[in-house]
Amino acid sequence: MRIHLQNPDHDPLFDFSRAMWNAAAARSPDIGMGHDVSLGVTHADFIAGMRDAEALVTDASVIKALFPCAAPNLEMIFLTNAGLDRLAPFDWLPPGVILMNNRGTHAAKSGEFALMSILMLASRVPAMVTHQRQGVWRKLWGSVLAGRNITIVGLGTLGGATASHAAHFGMRVTGVRSSPAPHPACVRVIGTQALDEILPETEFLVLACPLTAATRGLMDRKRLELLPAGAGLVNIGRGELLDQSVLCDLLDNGHLSGAVLDVFTPEPIPPGHRLWTTPNLIISPHTSADDPATYNPQSLDIFLDNLRAWRNGRPLPNRFDIVRGY
Amino acid sequence: MRIHLQNPDHDPLFDFSRAMWNAAAARSPDIGMGHDVSLGVTHADFIAGMRDAEALVTDASVIKALFPCAAPNLEMIFLTNAGLDRLAPFDWLPPGVILMNNRGTHAAKSGEFALMSILMLASRVPAMVTHQRQGVWRKLWGSVLAGRNITIVGLGTLGGATASHAAHFGMRVTGVRSSPAPHPACVRVIGTQALDEILPETEFLVLACPLTAATRGLMDRKRLELLPAGAGLVNIGRGELLDQSVLCDLLDNGHLSGAVLDVFTPEPIPPGHRLWTTPNLIISPHTSADDPATYNPQSLDIFLDNLRAWRNGRPLPNRFDIVRGY
Repeated sequence: MRIHLQNPDHDPLFDFSRAMWNAAAARSPDIGMGHDVSLGVTHADFIAGMRDAEALVTDASVIKALFPCAAPNLEMIFLTNAGLDRLAPFDWLPPGVILMNNRGTHAAKSGEFALMSILMLASRVPAMVTHQRQGVWRKLWGSVLAGRNITIVGLGTLGGATASHAAHFGMRVTGVRSSPAPHPACVRVIGTQALDEILPETEFLVLACPLTAATRGLMDRKRLELLPAGAGLVNIGRGELLDQSVLCDLLDNGHLSGAVLDVFTPEPIPPGHRLWTTPNLIISPHTSADDPATYNPQSLDIFLDNLRAWRNGRPLPNRFDIVRGY
Repeated sequence: MRIHLQNPDHDPLFDFSRAMWNAAAARSPDIGMGHDVSLGVTHADFIAGMRDAEALVTDASVIKALFPCAAPNLEMIFLTNAGLDRLAPFDWLPPGVILMNNRGTHAAKSGEFALMSILMLASRVPAMVTHQRQGVWRKLWGSVLAGRNITIVGLGTLGGATASHAAHFGMRVTGVRSSPAPHPACVRVIGTQALDEILPETEFLVLACPLTAATRGLMDRKRLELLPAGAGLVNIGRGELLDQSVLCDLLDNGHLSGAVLDVFTPEPIPPGHRLWTTPNLIISPHTSADDPATYNPQSLDIFLDNLRAWRNGRPLPNRFDIVRGY
């Protein structure tokens, strides 16, 4: 197959190299060998690659700038990102071309980040860091995770990995997703419409769902205030899933004991923004899901898994549904 | 048996109650029932209790102020702390009385705190918090734990729990202890005298050993500088295990990527102390090991385990060796 790998020109830490491709091909010799692979970084590279490429692998941050472009043989685009909300509407996508996202790549790193965040909330690290900023020694006691109630919104790659870790530590895990099918790490899974009923008993809330029309503003003032006093919140989904200023209010007045956020509105957080000085809040700069050492190898493995499915006429595990939004 | 529980007068969060005793007795009916149990908080309560008590359960922070005191029937003292370094020399201990510490109680909470700290170092949270303090958005990438080298000094309750968690996440765990017996979570266990050889390949160093004559100042300048560039450090043992000012130097100059400390010299950290503003450092106020909701129940369970061993003429699992220091 003619495969073109297009690197963005702004993030060399996550660039694909020919050595990475060769290593991925060697890991999956049944499907990885015998392809004609080109790499590019400039727009001219892209135009040249698209003349005969059948598959394109690239990053969501550049895809809209690359098209329209003549790509007569293109069958599929694999984007190395999971959340493609910023690419809507999808009218830039050449007709008939299959779009795939990179769900799965982020499981290990995101799951560990979410577990870390839950442990930080249980140990009151957001408050400890606030005291540290003030230069004040104040004893502050935490708890173990066993037996605590956690609610995880979204049970895809991120939420599923989070649920597994939480269950391993003996937490009582409630999953929330659009269709409430059971999940092995959850004592129960509910539909999004039942969220209000379980928020009052939620000690830890993790937002790990994609941003769609259905989830935008999901945690509004009413729902955030349904969380019990002392609850903690983690957001590894998208900033727009919650009302950020209400969250700051509830941290300011102490109703919530802490929050660990990896995503914000807007990003980057502007200088002088209220978030920088909100107490009991930990700010991670939207890097929770990505380990530079393992990201590209895993992305290529997932791409090759999809190529195998395509060749065998099976459904593509990473096919992106532009109507559903994930 | 006549058992006296003496609560310190300064920390009601960790006070024993009769209900706690009754619940512990019900959990271990073979050994918990039929005792004559008194509770006290004042010095007068203590003197009255010691008139006929055979066992004393209390906190290390008050024990030296309680003795000398006539205690003609006293057989054993169970202290609800693990590290008893501050009680040396042990000349306050009535002759012939068995001393026990509370090792084991801290496994769950300490292990989770240590895992959290390792995950925080891997995700670069100490640096993120430093950037947050400066109000600056700066992308900073972390890594997953799998395959990374961790060295854990001390494989008792704290270090053993830490090693198990680290192994669960696929880390390559090296244990360090005075006698290098194997440990199921470690790929190797070395004696303290071989520490210098493995520090250069240690990406994460966890100090989880007791403070003794042999471990005081263990991580001096020479050893801290043997850690490779970018390494991270966790201390859940005692502040005196390391040269704190050299640690601050190595965080200031960026040789170490971060540190999470629960113990310090001195405690509390005085206002204006260098530690408060050292970059890439997380300060926890010596509360990593203790969960108020589970601490006392676990302590009483461990005390009753020892009482069972004593009644059956077996060695006491928590007997404290005043020569060895743990």
